[in-house]
Amino acid sequence: MDLIQALNWRYATKKMNGTAVSDEKIEKILEAARLAPTSSGLQPFQIFVITDPTIKAQISPIAYNQSQITDSSHLIVFAAWDQYTNERIDSRFDYTNTFRGLPLDTTNEYKNQLKAQLFALDTFAQAAHIAKQSYIAFGILLMAAALESVDATPMEGFDKEALDNLLGFPEKGLKSTTMVALGYRDASQDWLVNMAKVRTPKDQFITKL
Amino acid sequence: MDLIQALNWRYATKKMNGTAVSDEKIEKILEAARLAPTSSGLQPFQIFVITDPTIKAQISPIAYNQSQITDSSHLIVFAAWDQYTNERIDSRFDYTNTFRGLPLDTTNEYKNQLKAQLFALDTFAQAAHIAKQSYIAFGILLMAAALESVDATPMEGFDKEALDNLLGFPEKGLKSTTMVALGYRDASQDWLVNMAKVRTPKDQFITKL
Repeated sequence: MDLIQALNWRYATKKMNGTAVSDEKIEKILEAARLAPTSSGLQPFQIFVITDPTIKAQISPIAYNQSQITDSSHLIVFAAWDQYTNERIDSRFDYTNTFRGLPLDTTNEYKNQLKAQLFALDTFAQAAHIAKQSYIAFGILLMAAALESVDATPMEGFDKEALDNLLGFPEKGLKSTTMVALGYRDASQDWLVNMAKVRTPKDQFITKL
Repeated sequence: MDLIQALNWRYATKKMNGTAVSDEKIEKILEAARLAPTSSGLQPFQIFVITDPTIKAQISPIAYNQSQITDSSHLIVFAAWDQYTNERIDSRFDYTNTFRGLPLDTTNEYKNQLKAQLFALDTFAQAAHIAKQSYIAFGILLMAAALESVDATPMEGFDKEALDNLLGFPEKGLKSTTMVALGYRDASQDWLVNMAKVRTPKDQFITKL
């Protein structure tokens, strides 16, 4: 499938059939998320990949008992930093400079400007900035799944505090932003599968200047 | 290029050579953004595509005079709704139901629950929720460009208020969230092109449960 075919093929799968997605495909889908661009390369989030049926069953009531939680092959949780800190930002820049064989102070001027901008944001605005970075990777992961002919249900509406507590995120300084159930559609039982995909018409979506 | 090759090939291009991207490629890249999934299918944003050199020159100082603004082939601006309104949400649901040949009240229960959730958010949280949706499409557009071997510079740090005023967004109830310069790299003049791509190592990025 090419890109546009894949995007037309995909939909927010409502019923999955429990079939496992191969490790090869999962690795590719996760690698796409890892390679996603983020603001200043900070990658202020991690990914949790859940296949344990006991944990999935615990997550189910946290996400409106959507059947895809338990019928998915892999349940992905995007876990974003709860805030920016000196340590976190320094660690990223140090790693990048080391990886590139550059002195650690190479990027100090840029880094200090960046810190000044980010630390000027209040707690809510910092969390929003961080969450947005995870949405870039979230979009790319959804597209990667479609290109691999793997079905996906993107989920944003769930009890984030309950999920965070279940997965021990507060101790890790993380906050969940989104989830994605990965698996295969059960076309015979999915009310959405045959509904036409609807998007804003091109002439209302795009303005050329 | 396959997906992973494309993501490794792409980078935040720092110097472009002014070469035009073909209409065919641009249409495909924009179509990918249009097809991007969003929360409840609301697509709470539009895309502005700027090729006019006069407007690009006006945007340049608004974005730290980054040369890619004027050396790009197409400059994309993501313009998000400034807030959720009854009219905007009704309009999306009505359009979807009409497109699918369903009675307009088919989705009323879901829509009213959704409105209750969204209107419970304060102005800042609404804007953050809307902006996040645009970041899904932003990520997908960047990946689409890479798959078409088109270079891109994602931009988040610019004077949003100045850009909004220049493009008349306040009258349209829109707020810019991100920009993307699309074009072709000038490899001989780009300091970043030969730097290794650095990402969080897999074992720190992914936790399997």
